[in-house]
Amino acid sequence: MIHSEQLKNNPKLYMFLPIYYTLWADSILTPVEQNTMKEFLDSQEWLSQSDQKFLLEYLDPKKPIKPKELKDWKKTILTADITKNKTLTDLGLDLFAKHANGDASNIDADTISGFRAAEQKLGMIGNEVNYIFQEGHETVTGNHAESSDFEVAKMTAILEGDDAEVIRKVKAVIKSADFKYPVNGDLSQQRDDVYQLCLILAKHGFGSWAFPKAYGGQDDMKGYFAIMETLSLHDLSMVIKFGVQFGLWGMSVFFLGSERHHKKYLKDIGTLLLPGCFAMTETNHGSNVKGIETTATYNHEDKTITINTPHDKACKEYIGNAAVHGQMATVFAKLIIDDTDYGVSAFVVPIRRKDGTNQPGVRIEDCGPKMGLNGVDNGKIWFDNVVISAEDMLDKFAGIDEKGEFISPITSDNRRFFTMLGTLVGGRIGIPRSGLSATKSGLTIAIRYANRRRQFGPQSGEEVPILNYRLHQRRLLPPLATAYGLHFSLKYLTDRFLNRSEEDAQEIEALAAGLKAYTTWFTTATLQECREACGGKGYLFENRISSLKADTDVYTTFEGDNTVLMQLVAKNRLTEFKQEFNNINLVTVFNYITDKAKVSITEKNPIIVRNTDTEHLLDFDFHMKAFEYREETILSTAAQRLKRLIGEGMDSFDAFNVSGHHLVNVGKAYIERIILEQFQAQVENTKDPECKKVIYKLAQLFALHTIEKNRGWYLEQDYMDGVKTKAIRKMVNQLSWELRKEAIALTDAFDIPDNCLAAEIAVSGG
Amino acid sequence: MIHSEQLKNNPKLYMFLPIYYTLWADSILTPVEQNTMKEFLDSQEWLSQSDQKFLLEYLDPKKPIKPKELKDWKKTILTADITKNKTLTDLGLDLFAKHANGDASNIDADTISGFRAAEQKLGMIGNEVNYIFQEGHETVTGNHAESSDFEVAKMTAILEGDDAEVIRKVKAVIKSADFKYPVNGDLSQQRDDVYQLCLILAKHGFGSWAFPKAYGGQDDMKGYFAIMETLSLHDLSMVIKFGVQFGLWGMSVFFLGSERHHKKYLKDIGTLLLPGCFAMTETNHGSNVKGIETTATYNHEDKTITINTPHDKACKEYIGNAAVHGQMATVFAKLIIDDTDYGVSAFVVPIRRKDGTNQPGVRIEDCGPKMGLNGVDNGKIWFDNVVISAEDMLDKFAGIDEKGEFISPITSDNRRFFTMLGTLVGGRIGIPRSGLSATKSGLTIAIRYANRRRQFGPQSGEEVPILNYRLHQRRLLPPLATAYGLHFSLKYLTDRFLNRSEEDAQEIEALAAGLKAYTTWFTTATLQECREACGGKGYLFENRISSLKADTDVYTTFEGDNTVLMQLVAKNRLTEFKQEFNNINLVTVFNYITDKAKVSITEKNPIIVRNTDTEHLLDFDFHMKAFEYREETILSTAAQRLKRLIGEGMDSFDAFNVSGHHLVNVGKAYIERIILEQFQAQVENTKDPECKKVIYKLAQLFALHTIEKNRGWYLEQDYMDGVKTKAIRKMVNQLSWELRKEAIALTDAFDIPDNCLAAEIAVSGG
Repeated sequence: MIHSEQLKNNPKLYMFLPIYYTLWADSILTPVEQNTMKEFLDSQEWLSQSDQKFLLEYLDPKKPIKPKELKDWKKTILTADITKNKTLTDLGLDLFAKHANGDASNIDADTISGFRAAEQKLGMIGNEVNYIFQEGHETVTGNHAESSDFEVAKMTAILEGDDAEVIRKVKAVIKSADFKYPVNGDLSQQRDDVYQLCLILAKHGFGSWAFPKAYGGQDDMKGYFAIMETLSLHDLSMVIKFGVQFGLWGMSVFFLGSERHHKKYLKDIGTLLLPGCFAMTETNHGSNVKGIETTATYNHEDKTITINTPHDKACKEYIGNAAVHGQMATVFAKLIIDDTDYGVSAFVVPIRRKDGTNQPGVRIEDCGPKMGLNGVDNGKIWFDNVVISAEDMLDKFAGIDEKGEFISPITSDNRRFFTMLGTLVGGRIGIPRSGLSATKSGLTIAIRYANRRRQFGPQSGEEVPILNYRLHQRRLLPPLATAYGLHFSLKYLTDRFLNRSEEDAQEIEALAAGLKAYTTWFTTATLQECREACGGKGYLFENRISSLKADTDVYTTFEGDNTVLMQLVAKNRLTEFKQEFNNINLVTVFNYITDKAKVSITEKNPIIVRNTDTEHLLDFDFHMKAFEYREETILSTAAQRLKRLIGEGMDSFDAFNVSGHHLVNVGKAYIERIILEQFQAQVENTKDPECKKVIYKLAQLFALHTIEKNRGWYLEQDYMDGVKTKAIRKMVNQLSWELRKEAIALTDAFDIPDNCLAAEIAVSGG
Repeated sequence: MIHSEQLKNNPKLYMFLPIYYTLWADSILTPVEQNTMKEFLDSQEWLSQSDQKFLLEYLDPKKPIKPKELKDWKKTILTADITKNKTLTDLGLDLFAKHANGDASNIDADTISGFRAAEQKLGMIGNEVNYIFQEGHETVTGNHAESSDFEVAKMTAILEGDDAEVIRKVKAVIKSADFKYPVNGDLSQQRDDVYQLCLILAKHGFGSWAFPKAYGGQDDMKGYFAIMETLSLHDLSMVIKFGVQFGLWGMSVFFLGSERHHKKYLKDIGTLLLPGCFAMTETNHGSNVKGIETTATYNHEDKTITINTPHDKACKEYIGNAAVHGQMATVFAKLIIDDTDYGVSAFVVPIRRKDGTNQPGVRIEDCGPKMGLNGVDNGKIWFDNVVISAEDMLDKFAGIDEKGEFISPITSDNRRFFTMLGTLVGGRIGIPRSGLSATKSGLTIAIRYANRRRQFGPQSGEEVPILNYRLHQRRLLPPLATAYGLHFSLKYLTDRFLNRSEEDAQEIEALAAGLKAYTTWFTTATLQECREACGGKGYLFENRISSLKADTDVYTTFEGDNTVLMQLVAKNRLTEFKQEFNNINLVTVFNYITDKAKVSITEKNPIIVRNTDTEHLLDFDFHMKAFEYREETILSTAAQRLKRLIGEGMDSFDAFNVSGHHLVNVGKAYIERIILEQFQAQVENTKDPECKKVIYKLAQLFALHTIEKNRGWYLEQDYMDGVKTKAIRKMVNQLSWELRKEAIALTDAFDIPDNCLAAEIAVSGG
């Protein structure tokens, strides 16, 4: 076209060039575009017949313009002033003027407005089309970037609190050159590497940290939790191996045994001189651990106890330290004296000699490779009438007296068992704190990558960091807020646990069970989101998300299956009123809960139900009321439901079964209220104004995102109207957009050492 | 107590024994229980002072009953007739009679009713308490079991349809002794194992199945998809390696090349004599693949093309077959002729000699270990001015003529690129079909295990199969229903794809993109649920869920990131009206969509909004209307939103960004309607009445579960009232409860060979 005589003779035809280019450049020429243009040509009386014919030649979908010619058109168009001329018609006028030696007066206003109308009719409006020619297209999305007002170090100090010193000590060790990640692959090598790392940790005294000073410890349980949490920034096999040895094996001797056991074992456990196991779970009994079948039979004549596995599937399974390193084990078994079963107690049983061979009567099988945590040597253990001294019964809660009679301060077998387990509830604090550390690593990797990674962009503009996309913000920023909320909540749980009394022990056990389940589900979901958010890079081993995911996946099962735990929380919530009322009649309790809930229904006033003011939506008080309303209502409707079902003659076992889903929500709603409470309390207690501001915003995002997630429920209850839940969704978007700026600083505040993070896309130049 | 003189002297005191036992047996004796009993004792005038004193001794929480004594009480109580006496009072009367030599007449009616009242007050009601003594407690939950009415083989035949023959052929091969799973661990061994398996598959002609007969194939693309699907019941590394060789490398030569390329390469590709790669993605360009930076510069003098990687991050990444086996690659690069960039084309480039050394100018790096698919040797490739003959440009859509000029039937670079990609859309069918096969394996393992695994149970009753728990049913049965729905939908997609014309090609591309995203997200979520549902067993490598999960995790990224694909689907939905209207003016289109939606709002009549009749809730027509309403409304509100934002002056790039979340929902709602449509059509087309009945129920469960999942949206729209969404939740529970019985048969119908399933908990005695 552009080299034709026709154009030279009538430079006014240049008016068509920008429109023609636009028609051909993006996609195929559609019949309607062709027709619209034909009509337009017909209407232009100033065109000669030969001009018309010439122009029609370039409008035939069957004779497409050659790619090279199209590019030449563009080159020609670019000789016009692209920045000044905002429409195709203006561009055309400029080209016309250029080729008519600066004189474009030979065109009337009607013709010009005809072109403008055609442009409009073809949907070529304003800037959008102009960006086909113009470079440097800038957008709000493209220009959004990181910037934060708070000091990272101050935020880190808030997160660390009074654990700062022990965290510093642990980091100094795991940053050292010794702490290389075990190489993926060979199982026995991984296990050995992890064992060596645990030896180093023991040498630094971290393993015995919670034990009494007399046995080489620091008598500091709080510090022990901080150690677990900090170690979890590094290899998680190492953390679990560490936890098995010092937490499960060590603490079971410490909490279930008496002084003679402490003297005999604790020091060697703390130095890892005596590696051991915690052998509770059996193949046939995991969640329902009260049903374990291993027996411990008392022999009066020589005051010994015979440990026995009655059948193949009653073996101990998944036992950490069992396959390779463990020499002894705390074995849970039903104590039998004179044919009477006294329920589950714990016994110290040697399983392996120093030389690595099994003790007589002990059979051990390797659980083999697992989805993750392959540095931990899990195994199965069978006992074939293994005889131990009665002295090795861990007898804090139950023992055998001189006459060979069972003694215990706790009458009920059931109660005794759960009291024993209650002392071991620390595992339900250690695991979620470990899982949250892993989540922080995942979020740091995914957010840093999303800040660097550019993909897509506006036409003729630069590619945009993917963290600027709303969808990506929604994937990563609500979880970032939740991670902060959980951090504060798990600290609160730890403090409650460390200061517990007999009165609040059960409440704290429920709190631990609930936070364990909530946090580990959150960990699994968030790391999955991080993996997907990093695309192919997230799938590579070198970027660590694969290990974080695989290793933590079992956290939802560890220390109790999450769905079982959440139902346990619900049952605790339903019956805690028992004590308040001093009444064991469940029906009375259910009635009480129901009445209590009726009061709060007055909250539902029609103005609040539809209130979408920004100030209201961001109000802490609104958030807390909504969370409390949900918590109380779900609890009371669960109570009503159970009451109705049992009242109708349903077996209570069936009634609890059909209410299972409801009960899990009782647990979740309770935990969400706790998290919000701790989040808001943290805002209250934060002195630094910049940190306070951003924690405030994180708490708002957590609250609104949680309400958004539960909006189906709020709408069903008429607690909120659709206009309000929609406004909340918008607010979640807005808060995510704002927090995107602070996201890098917020992950920097986790202060994860580079060698621990160890992901190529997050640490190096990326 | 029981051996005391007091009891011997006054056997009437036995009346207290069952209540006392119950008070002590379960947990601690609470102060209120103590007080209630004290009051009761005071009111019993027939008790002597010494009786009173005696009885009070056993009510002191500070002096708990010894465990042994409690057990003796129980033994005594069990001498009464447990089955006949349903209350503690009746049991007491029986014991009294026994110890008074059968004469329990010495007690008046008032005393008896006093006991009954006390029992009530203490909350010890009916059977619930009696189960403390009675064995064999049966419940509805416990008695629920598997039973199915349909013939498994008939269902399998429905699932296989006309692919049955090729499926049979593939299964015969993968059931053979050669098909052992590669052992987890050593990377190079895994890769070699997988390569050997692919050689066997090639020998059976499966690799070339889709190629023309002239090049050793069967000319059967439909069969090729069935092969991929069936192979995916076995090792997924093998499937992906197979897909890379025959699907990506082979099909790119087949679809993008001309006859000379077919002649030169296809036969050797089909036999795996010529292993190759599909080198499209670059480190800096994954989703935005149009932006790749590798150049292919034409040299006029010798008619060659120089392939070059301009900078480090423009290397080809994640390329399957690149690290070890690939000898050639289809390389996507921007074609440059005389300094003009003609957009992306494809070129066949030798990368490695037969002896395993790299071709000159080619640098290859191993991507190393990955989360999964470690039998596939992914690598990075850099080209340092590698020269190939211009003959090796795959020139179906673009070429270079004798004069060295670029030629193409498609004017627009953009359009040409997406037309090229369109021919390769088969990958977006193969991947979800493979993912669904893996999901079927996961569901089969988890459901079989849940049917065998017993945990917890009613007091004094047997443990219950965990599949009888509602929570467990809710975890596994809606996904099972969805898996059936997706099976039918992916078959539909395949048929549409195989019979596509130019007119519906874009619609089918969107359908493939949407079903790929929906299915692979479903796969990831369902396998996660299966893992957790199997507890610790699910974490062990031997039970295969870990591999299924790890291997398929990247399916959400393969063939396009799911969130990007879903937005693509939405954009297609928004613009498909363009063609209908023959108008490219987007605003007009948006107006049209809006108007169209207004019509359907009349559906919202207040009776239907609150209708909770079972018949209505199970009605196919109700389901379809609800799905269509959602699909249309979300689409029209997206259109309105974009129109409003752009109308307010927002850059369209920003407008699409802030609507990202909304757009993903446009895609999901569309895909969900498609699945329901295909599900309902399958019911219609199923002749066998028993199979029809169960597919009917599966379709109902899918529909209601999907509505339940989206209930927040329906409530916001006032399309349903809270009473209705609650009724739907109940119905989902009910359908899951009913389908639990057929679940085993429904997974058996997937007909997965035992050696392929290969999970210890699902195949052997469990």
